[in-house]
Amino acid sequence: LAKTKSRRQRWEVKPSEMANKTLNPIRAIVDGMKLTPNPDKPMIALSIGDPTVFGNMPTDFAVLQAMKDAIDCQKYNGYAPSVGYLKSRQAVANFYTCPEAPLEAEDVILTSGCSQAIDLAISVLCNPGDNILVPCPGFSLYKTLAVSMGIEVKLYNLLPEKSWEVDLKHLESLIDERTSCLIVTNPSNPCGSVFSEEHLQKILKVASRHCVPILADEIYSNMVFPGCSCPSMASLSSDVPILSCGGLAKRWLVPGWRMGWILIHDRNDIFGSKIRQGLVKLSQRILGACSIIQGALESILNNTPQSFYSDTINFLKTNSEICFNELCTVPGLNPIMPSGAMYLMVGIDMDRFPDFKSDVDFTERLVTEQSVFCLPASAFEYPNFFRIVVTVPEEMMVEACGRIKEFCQHHYCSGSHDSNYLDQ
Amino acid sequence: LAKTKSRRQRWEVKPSEMANKTLNPIRAIVDGMKLTPNPDKPMIALSIGDPTVFGNMPTDFAVLQAMKDAIDCQKYNGYAPSVGYLKSRQAVANFYTCPEAPLEAEDVILTSGCSQAIDLAISVLCNPGDNILVPCPGFSLYKTLAVSMGIEVKLYNLLPEKSWEVDLKHLESLIDERTSCLIVTNPSNPCGSVFSEEHLQKILKVASRHCVPILADEIYSNMVFPGCSCPSMASLSSDVPILSCGGLAKRWLVPGWRMGWILIHDRNDIFGSKIRQGLVKLSQRILGACSIIQGALESILNNTPQSFYSDTINFLKTNSEICFNELCTVPGLNPIMPSGAMYLMVGIDMDRFPDFKSDVDFTERLVTEQSVFCLPASAFEYPNFFRIVVTVPEEMMVEACGRIKEFCQHHYCSGSHDSNYLDQ
Ligand SMILES: Cc1ncc(COP(=O)(O)O)c(C=O)c1O
Ligand SMILES: Cc1ncc(COP(=O)(O)O)c(C=O)c1O
Repeated sequence: LAKTKSRRQRWEVKPSEMANKTLNPIRAIVDGMKLTPNPDKPMIALSIGDPTVFGNMPTDFAVLQAMKDAIDCQKYNGYAPSVGYLKSRQAVANFYTCPEAPLEAEDVILTSGCSQAIDLAISVLCNPGDNILVPCPGFSLYKTLAVSMGIEVKLYNLLPEKSWEVDLKHLESLIDERTSCLIVTNPSNPCGSVFSEEHLQKILKVASRHCVPILADEIYSNMVFPGCSCPSMASLSSDVPILSCGGLAKRWLVPGWRMGWILIHDRNDIFGSKIRQGLVKLSQRILGACSIIQGALESILNNTPQSFYSDTINFLKTNSEICFNELCTVPGLNPIMPSGAMYLMVGIDMDRFPDFKSDVDFTERLVTEQSVFCLPASAFEYPNFFRIVVTVPEEMMVEACGRIKEFCQHHYCSGSHDSNYLDQ
Repeated sequence: LAKTKSRRQRWEVKPSEMANKTLNPIRAIVDGMKLTPNPDKPMIALSIGDPTVFGNMPTDFAVLQAMKDAIDCQKYNGYAPSVGYLKSRQAVANFYTCPEAPLEAEDVILTSGCSQAIDLAISVLCNPGDNILVPCPGFSLYKTLAVSMGIEVKLYNLLPEKSWEVDLKHLESLIDERTSCLIVTNPSNPCGSVFSEEHLQKILKVASRHCVPILADEIYSNMVFPGCSCPSMASLSSDVPILSCGGLAKRWLVPGWRMGWILIHDRNDIFGSKIRQGLVKLSQRILGACSIIQGALESILNNTPQSFYSDTINFLKTNSEICFNELCTVPGLNPIMPSGAMYLMVGIDMDRFPDFKSDVDFTERLVTEQSVFCLPASAFEYPNFFRIVVTVPEEMMVEACGRIKEFCQHHYCSGSHDSNYLDQ
């Protein structure tokens, strides 16, 4: 029998296009940096979005106890349903329900971290060739996921001079027929900003006008400084359907546990049963969160004391103020005071620092000379800024700010050329 | 300013093609069945591939203790690297390394269950338009994942009369230029079969001849009955590169914990750094396993007593024998004795049961009349068989087999027509 099919004659195994298209801008930038700290100064990393690394922000005892109880009872070793145990979904629904945006167990899909929640939400709403609207600066995962799936990313501007509010005109100008989802991150990584109710209403109006559903990344929900309110997007929406993504990672300070969720806030049956079923089907691909954590979830949500949440927030606020107040005094830097989350963005007057080509260059040299590492905001598609994570112990924050100041004073150039003049 | 872009005028949110193409054949079939048990007989489910559901197969105390230690030490609450903690990868490498297929930490990628391991392995090796070779009967997830990614599935036959060995000719006939991966499940779900070393060598030769890399699904590795050996594919391969997928789910009886891994067995640098980097990049999409379980992994692998593994195996073997011996005596049924895993396949002489159109019909009525549920093997693309899960308590197995016998005796029809005659 002659072989008619053409077959391979030699080994040739190449990674798929999807693997090649899976780009992590943070890794791409950081891996290209020469991060050699000054041997005379201990390294201080203000770059890592993991509140647990310094040991100063442990989770609550009640959270740990819930986990140990879930292990001891031996009821949570088997497969959970792919969307999560009903009891655990109910617990999340109870925790987040409100009269303006009621939730029941069936509106909750448990996932492996907020990252999988975002993955499922984009996967169910978008086809290759569609586009999604993503904040700039913004969390890089949206683009990583979308590009790998052949979905176009359109960046809409946030305005630093308006506490990072959305440039609504710009946002609206980007929408076309293939726009299948608007991502809103509130509170924001990397900005630490929190939108007012009024501003959220305006964003909703744009979505409503053009019939674009919203993916609300609310992983930092409730992590807002005292006096600042932060309603969920869904609680303000009367017609825009919203998939709200969240999880335990940030507020409960256990990002490694990979416990996330999608809250389905339909309106006028626009998502309908089809989007729900689509999410259920997608959840069956690899199943979701670890059953032990699911088993502990009800107790975690119900038994974590209020003081834990407020202690966390107060700490983040104090550290943000220390950092902001100190960097405000540094010529050439423009820190922007956050209202929540765990980040603070700092603008760099690049023409005052002729020694450096870019924010990447600036932050690289800050490591070489002062052993302080901040993420250049190019990693968030936002050059000429850097991001500071405010979860480090207070004394480290003070020391780091001192060193940043020294660094800037050393390189600052109050030369006669006026950038405003040149810009005109 | 006139709006030039065409935009949506009304709401129209539809699930993506990927969501629509994510099909779960087990759900599709089971959800379509009318499963109303006989009210006079308590239900016995022999359908669920979850060894924990009856409580008779708890995991080992050492496994639970490892988890509680990982929680108490509070070192595993933060983000792990996307491919897993180095220490945990090292522990897996140490556990599975052997002289013929040495493993180091960097050859191990930790994942959220074996399901994510399979997802990543297919994702890195295959592009839309490629095809993969999948065993028939076989575990349905391969097809679910592949089809959703636009990858074609070609089913190669296993031969029940040869203890489910691969029909090598058929396998080879399916290979073409776009064949990017051969999936081998050993030991097998749903067959419980275990390939001999000789047979594995023959499969490897086919892969080698046509330069097709192997995805070895070895989630049931080491779960073989006494006297039966089960070398890993990689230990027998000198030239075929292999991604071996595994995890804690089955052997350690904790499927809900979602702890899986890929073992990268390269040969002659055929995978090279590119496939490795591709896997790393894909792992960054949603990150992998829960950090607590990763933290417990070294202790789980090193401290689980040998007796736990052998007790599990002995129980599965005894139950398999009870089931096989009993169903052997039932006219019209052809059970096939397994050698490992936790399943047993039973052929149905359909023309002896004219009351039923199909295996789906047969198993549905078995519920209605006898309150025993077995999965029709149509769910594994293999009609006229059903699968029994042998993890149920022994007395349930005995009772269930008695009821299956009664059911078959009731419906068996030793009519004069001879199917062999008709077939000729
Ligand atoms: C805005 C935002 N969304 C989602 C995530 C991912 O959350 P998880 O760790 O639960 O996947 C992060 C993590 O930093 C984040 O900053
Ligand atoms: C052959 C096979 N591979 C993979 C899996 C999935 O394993 P996990 O639960 O670790 O994702 C199963 C589960 O039943 C299986 O039978």
